[in-house]
Amino acid sequence: MQRFKLLIEYDGRPFSGWQRQKNAPSVQETIEDALLDLNKGERVLVQGSGRTDAGVHALGQVAHIDLERKIEADKLQGAINHGIAGHPVSILSVEAVDSNFHARFSAVRRHYIYRILNRRAPLTFNKGLVWGVKHPLDVEAMHDAAQVLVGEHDFTTFRHIHCQAESPIKTLDYIRVQKVEDEIHISAGARSFLHHQIRSITGSLKLVGTGKWTKTTLQDALEAKDRAALMLNAPPDGLYFKKVEFS
Amino acid sequence: MQRFKLLIEYDGRPFSGWQRQKNAPSVQETIEDALLDLNKGERVLVQGSGRTDAGVHALGQVAHIDLERKIEADKLQGAINHGIAGHPVSILSVEAVDSNFHARFSAVRRHYIYRILNRRAPLTFNKGLVWGVKHPLDVEAMHDAAQVLVGEHDFTTFRHIHCQAESPIKTLDYIRVQKVEDEIHISAGARSFLHHQIRSITGSLKLVGTGKWTKTTLQDALEAKDRAALMLNAPPDGLYFKKVEFS
Repeated sequence: MQRFKLLIEYDGRPFSGWQRQKNAPSVQETIEDALLDLNKGERVLVQGSGRTDAGVHALGQVAHIDLERKIEADKLQGAINHGIAGHPVSILSVEAVDSNFHARFSAVRRHYIYRILNRRAPLTFNKGLVWGVKHPLDVEAMHDAAQVLVGEHDFTTFRHIHCQAESPIKTLDYIRVQKVEDEIHISAGARSFLHHQIRSITGSLKLVGTGKWTKTTLQDALEAKDRAALMLNAPPDGLYFKKVEFS
Repeated sequence: MQRFKLLIEYDGRPFSGWQRQKNAPSVQETIEDALLDLNKGERVLVQGSGRTDAGVHALGQVAHIDLERKIEADKLQGAINHGIAGHPVSILSVEAVDSNFHARFSAVRRHYIYRILNRRAPLTFNKGLVWGVKHPLDVEAMHDAAQVLVGEHDFTTFRHIHCQAESPIKTLDYIRVQKVEDEIHISAGARSFLHHQIRSITGSLKLVGTGKWTKTTLQDALEAKDRAALMLNAPPDGLYFKKVEFS
């Protein structure tokens, strides 16, 4: 038995999310289907570092798989990419790893990026790949306000009501709001995130960017520890699972 | 009569090109159709700065239109964008201009960019938006070789056999090959370009990047003034009409 670590990029638009589910296309199942041929028709579990919702993308999702048959990492990459051809999913690299490695449990930090295209004109290339916000946003005010979220907090306000995490307490290592050409990028890193946490934070920061909210309103919303204090959840379009760090 | 200058972005994938043609969707016709309602059902000519081929994109195509009715530039932008909604075309700005302004004839410099994604793994988000080249390319060698093309030359080798320009002699103002994150960007500027000129140059530079061609081979190909000396034409996927400068 050999364990392999896969680095995966995908366009989330046609998928109902990372995780396999009945009657809906998922990234996990797409890769598992491609592995069937390699594994004599037997299903291989593709264990991801984190789930992503419908329409959410990945630049650096990580997963591990176990294979009985001997195969070189490079050949495995080629074979999976061949099997998933036609789907907007790409295995960027494959590495043979020790069986102690676990894509989910060995991960110590996850990085996400949220892309906003801040302009009046409609989207073209980027439909579904960025959140198009027409109202001009104050990037500095957004960055400054966001800093109240850094550190250990009860993020109940920024948590989907169906979030399955045991605790709403998470430690946000950093959050940055930057102008990158004609886009605004919100980057965040933490050991783990709650369901919808980044989209809820992004929605709130958009309110700060338009002047509807201030740093204080954001602080109050955080301290309310109440989902009802959330006024706006950003769409999945602009969210990318960027990178995973391991111990 | 008022003339307006339009700045236009489009995703070329679903179009047979900029120019209106029978039985095939074009960007020009898409915008002209949107203007019908504004112009009491009468067709308005949308005159572009340059034609783009099927599958070629634009970040900054410029066009002008003449309207009899009075309308503010901002309202006109909103109205056209409303009319083209659903198509990956976006009017980035509209400006009222003097009737001496001509999108094609007043243009003094056109800038293009060609995007190559240089990696072994297949494309995801970028299918049709970049040229995916798997073989590692030597960016410095490409940039260095490209400099032999700068200046006034007979570009017959790099010209489509159906090119309608009167002369194959053009002056290339600059060409740069740069690594930008995981992409390679080829930027070029000139008063005007021949049909397929940038795609033919890009294909040749790819041969330099893989070591099949040298700077000397490229120079020889240029001096041959013979389309038969061209070994590789790049696909439309990575080509963007970036910017137009006016006198």
